[in-house]
Amino acid sequence: MGDAALAPKEHLLITFMRDLAPDQLEEIKAKFPGLEVSSVTLKRGEDIPSELAKKASYIVTFTNLPKPEDAGNIKFIHFLSAGLDHAIQHPIFKETAIPLTSSSGVHAPPIAEWTVMNWLVHTRKYAYMYEGQKNHEWRDSNSGYFQGVHDQVGKRVGILGYGSIGRQTSPRPTPSSRHDNGFIVPNTGDKEGTIPISWHHGTDKASIREFLALGLDHLVISLPLTPQTTHLLGAEEFALLAASQGSKGAKPYLTNISRGKVLDQEALIGALKSGDLSGAALDVTDPEPLPAGHPLWDAPNVQISPHVSSLGVEYFPRSLDIVKENVGRVKRGEELLNVYKRGKGY
Amino acid sequence: MGDAALAPKEHLLITFMRDLAPDQLEEIKAKFPGLEVSSVTLKRGEDIPSELAKKASYIVTFTNLPKPEDAGNIKFIHFLSAGLDHAIQHPIFKETAIPLTSSSGVHAPPIAEWTVMNWLVHTRKYAYMYEGQKNHEWRDSNSGYFQGVHDQVGKRVGILGYGSIGRQTSPRPTPSSRHDNGFIVPNTGDKEGTIPISWHHGTDKASIREFLALGLDHLVISLPLTPQTTHLLGAEEFALLAASQGSKGAKPYLTNISRGKVLDQEALIGALKSGDLSGAALDVTDPEPLPAGHPLWDAPNVQISPHVSSLGVEYFPRSLDIVKENVGRVKRGEELLNVYKRGKGY
Repeated sequence: MGDAALAPKEHLLITFMRDLAPDQLEEIKAKFPGLEVSSVTLKRGEDIPSELAKKASYIVTFTNLPKPEDAGNIKFIHFLSAGLDHAIQHPIFKETAIPLTSSSGVHAPPIAEWTVMNWLVHTRKYAYMYEGQKNHEWRDSNSGYFQGVHDQVGKRVGILGYGSIGRQTSPRPTPSSRHDNGFIVPNTGDKEGTIPISWHHGTDKASIREFLALGLDHLVISLPLTPQTTHLLGAEEFALLAASQGSKGAKPYLTNISRGKVLDQEALIGALKSGDLSGAALDVTDPEPLPAGHPLWDAPNVQISPHVSSLGVEYFPRSLDIVKENVGRVKRGEELLNVYKRGKGY
Repeated sequence: MGDAALAPKEHLLITFMRDLAPDQLEEIKAKFPGLEVSSVTLKRGEDIPSELAKKASYIVTFTNLPKPEDAGNIKFIHFLSAGLDHAIQHPIFKETAIPLTSSSGVHAPPIAEWTVMNWLVHTRKYAYMYEGQKNHEWRDSNSGYFQGVHDQVGKRVGILGYGSIGRQTSPRPTPSSRHDNGFIVPNTGDKEGTIPISWHHGTDKASIREFLALGLDHLVISLPLTPQTTHLLGAEEFALLAASQGSKGAKPYLTNISRGKVLDQEALIGALKSGDLSGAALDVTDPEPLPAGHPLWDAPNVQISPHVSSLGVEYFPRSLDIVKENVGRVKRGEELLNVYKRGKGY
């Protein structure tokens, strides 16, 4: 006891864009009994004040980073987002080797639910029923409206960027190479990588086209945004996706849960208008917020949500589970979970 | 060849409330190359004209039945619905022993999708995003709106009436007793009955209350409507369901995909208003169609659809797969799939 009790506790600093509720902070303190925990409210992208940064051993943040000269004690910086692209121009990325960790994996259950929800809302024409209810109208099968409704039995889903960040860029020829070694919410996910019926890789044009020609009913984009993935999908890719379905009934449906810029948004609107895509669920747009006058809002069969697919009351506690795991790994000298690889850009 | 070619083909008669499209009839004929297939358009509940009924060996119908005296050649009557409650007053039920088969099982994939869709639409507040999009508003997380959004990891779902019709009424103490012996759409379902974490049975008050006290996050009602299940759930049952959740965050959500009369609709409205239920998805109401002035339309957090959860382009072909299987079973002298048990009422 003696020495440990006298030694100053290491400091965990949380930066947030709005004040944490008192009970939220108490919950966090209870999760880290060995650390001193404090929080500070900062504006988006604002640097962490020097006096706070210098005291911290661990930082948890969305967008606030310390200046490199204040970061001498910092053992890692944990981002509350899955992607770190919004922050990579900061000197902390380029001028230090401080480990940076992401919340990749935390998002999986809510985003999976959001994806399934939107796909079903589209295929089962939920909005038609919703508007019917608002109007107190019993819009039953006699209207003939439900002729085009179909279910998803036997449908083929292609995921661009499967599992933890980066899995899609390397070949996965062996079972062990398909394992997901990032954070996985307990009792969910596909740690062993046994769910996909086939694996593909590469973000060059030829690889992407081979993938899009598989006859997909639903393309889900979950790639990180990097220079290689920017505008990866455009008019030609959407046309290829549609053509590869052949004589099947419904045209492909597209879901984007990564970043708006991974696709050419104008080409997407074109593919929705031409019917090459039967619909699209977009949780991300370019830019964000999407301006009120932007034509994407009213594109045919598009479902837009304001970058909220990952949110929920479980988000913050799960992300802090990663921090807790990594504080332990620092003590034990082990490699951190969800660590950002500076050279690769994700 | 000789004799078989000369023998008159058996006749399969399909009755429908509107004309079948020519290509639909062609598809059906292709499915039954050994039978003569014809269709007739009849009003809901209208008896099948004698001259048609007398020629038929097999009848496929929603609501149209032959008079007993015209049914001498009929080997079975197949209903395009899962429940037969709408037709059990007909003399063909009481005065003949003609096998009657249902479409139970055909509905499983679309109804499962409808159920998941509505649950997610509720928990993820889809309507809020949908209305935001209509207004071109980027209603992002800063609104604080998403504080109450949660995902379904670890949530407990209770199904009243699991699997094929009637499984819920008998004890299921052994693995083999849990098998689903009805029709199952290939590559779906739970034929072995291994998915539930526990099994319960009985439709008496005490059994139902024991079930409702399990701390369910989501109660799905898929019971057949019988005298025993009519108004099975009322004010006391909803209160018990809510109370058994204890200190958990969200109150239980209710889904009804069976018949409106299995619950006391006024009590349901009360439970939604009091907050004992966080929401409800109803594909069935009492009566149907729900009159435009009915208060259920505007009950808090209710999602109503006009008895369409099972519909889709796959419905009819899958139901005819049961007919095809049963024509084979008649030839082989085997027990029919999905056969109605007159004594039990389902």
